[in-house]
Amino acid sequence: MDTASHIALAADLLGVFFFAVSGSLLAARKGFDLVGSLLLASLASLGGGVARDLIIDVPPAAFNNPAYLVPPLLATVLVYFVFSGVERVKRVLVIFDAAGLALFCITGTVKALDVGLNPVSAVLLGVTTAVGGGLLRDVVANEIPQLFDPRDIYALPAMLGAVVVVVLYLTGTFTIVTGMLAASLVFSLRVLAWRYGWHAPLASRTWSARR
Amino acid sequence: MDTASHIALAADLLGVFFFAVSGSLLAARKGFDLVGSLLLASLASLGGGVARDLIIDVPPAAFNNPAYLVPPLLATVLVYFVFSGVERVKRVLVIFDAAGLALFCITGTVKALDVGLNPVSAVLLGVTTAVGGGLLRDVVANEIPQLFDPRDIYALPAMLGAVVVVVLYLTGTFTIVTGMLAASLVFSLRVLAWRYGWHAPLASRTWSARR
Amino acid sequence: MDTASHIALAADLLGVFFFAVSGSLLAARKGFDLVGSLLLASLASLGGGVARDLIIDVPPAAFNNPAYLVPPLLATVLVYFVFSGVERVKRVLVIFDAAGLALFCITGTVKALDVGLNPVSAVLLGVTTAVGGGLLRDVVANEIPQLFDPRDIYALPAMLGAVVVVVLYLTGTFTIVTGMLAASLVFSLRVLAWRYGWHAPLASRTWSARR
Repeated sequence: MDTASHIALAADLLGVFFFAVSGSLLAARKGFDLVGSLLLASLASLGGGVARDLIIDVPPAAFNNPAYLVPPLLATVLVYFVFSGVERVKRVLVIFDAAGLALFCITGTVKALDVGLNPVSAVLLGVTTAVGGGLLRDVVANEIPQLFDPRDIYALPAMLGAVVVVVLYLTGTFTIVTGMLAASLVFSLRVLAWRYGWHAPLASRTWSARR
Repeated sequence: MDTASHIALAADLLGVFFFAVSGSLLAARKGFDLVGSLLLASLASLGGGVARDLIIDVPPAAFNNPAYLVPPLLATVLVYFVFSGVERVKRVLVIFDAAGLALFCITGTVKALDVGLNPVSAVLLGVTTAVGGGLLRDVVANEIPQLFDPRDIYALPAMLGAVVVVVLYLTGTFTIVTGMLAASLVFSLRVLAWRYGWHAPLASRTWSARR
Repeated sequence: MDTASHIALAADLLGVFFFAVSGSLLAARKGFDLVGSLLLASLASLGGGVARDLIIDVPPAAFNNPAYLVPPLLATVLVYFVFSGVERVKRVLVIFDAAGLALFCITGTVKALDVGLNPVSAVLLGVTTAVGGGLLRDVVANEIPQLFDPRDIYALPAMLGAVVVVVLYLTGTFTIVTGMLAASLVFSLRVLAWRYGWHAPLASRTWSARR
């Protein structure tokens, strides 16, 4: 394994950890038990990557490298012992989720380009990887997915990040530094959007939201 | 690419468009924003085909041909500008959904037969393709899936259509014309079932529905 | 096909049947119709195995062997004619679900080991196979998944069973008899946990459950 692969694996595992924490936090908020926490952490953190790997037809990393099970275990233990105080959960969850989103849209897009997908499909796969795990997490926990919450933008930063990665990659300027800058951009946009309620127009020009 | 492939692609993209509109309409009805509309349109319209392609182990068309992203974009714009008036949404949604169902049960079954699946499995894959995207759409939007609504039949027309396609295919009489007739049959049965409340017996002979 | 394959297929189909009954029972309880019963039975009973086969990149058995459609059909007919009396449904559902869980965690883990997955990943795939179908069943029927119900343990028996199978397999002591004993252990633990409310600690040490 060369240095580049090591860094890619580290970035992927870090993204897995962030999403795993978001899963365990949601499990805590929903009153699930420790096993449910581990399972929701695993689904949130590994689901997007498994979907990505199935689509590009490579063996899913989560089912070939036991290292991928460490972050969900860590997250479960961490949430069990460290976090307390319901009022802070939503905030912490959003921030960990944003960090996972940022890393996964970078790693997912790069993996897509590495296997030779065209630029448009690479963006689509990067976004799918980034939003997939969080979507699964919210759906199985019977929550309205954050992805569809019209009060702040969620997928748009990931789309932008995937496009930036494609441009960097095709111009030969994708490096660890520029990749980390792209991830920081996605993270910052998502957190700022949530903090200040930046939102997109509704799906219909004429209807108001009906919940 | 020969003529037959062009027609197959056109039929597939048309089905994608119909399901995409159903996704954007549901997004509008749920009060999602434009990005959510694009994502729900994409999930509804591409989800069934991606599942189909993963199962028969071919590269998912949606992630290899950027043309597949055009229908969700069109649907998002169309729903944003054109549709207004909440009272009509459900009706329009059902009709577009029926059109997607009709086309996808044809194209899905044919694709299954083309890769050599046995007739029974081809029917199963055709039905999976046809109902998969709509099921994903309704589940992530936290709706009771249309698929399971006992007030009118939904999957039965698709099952019938898939069987008809298998018979046409095995007898060498599957052509554009007979394929379109089969799709029309599925569409008509589904819309009539919805309009006139044609329904199947409940899952239990003795219980009444408890909602 | 040799004897071992015949037995593996029989065990798999039996697990499919148990989960199929759980799907049809839930369909009856939710007031779905007969077609919805067949579809929910199919999703519950075939979903976990299809996910397993996609992950290990073998053709999904359910889409290659029409025999896999017989259990859902049987379950649909059985639930339609045989079961009545709402008060007993939940109990019967839990027991059939437990039987499917027990068989699937054995067959899923063995299949993973057969294709050469490492022991940790084999446990993960066995658990995924075992809980996947039931999770899909509950999610599409808009129920809080049994998997996440903190009142009794659900996934833990399956995890234990998968570990037992790995140990048996690696020590060369996996036989029909020891495999059936492992399945019985999983089934018994799950049913006893449900009957006596054996539960795990909540996901957070300090919060109480909020529903």
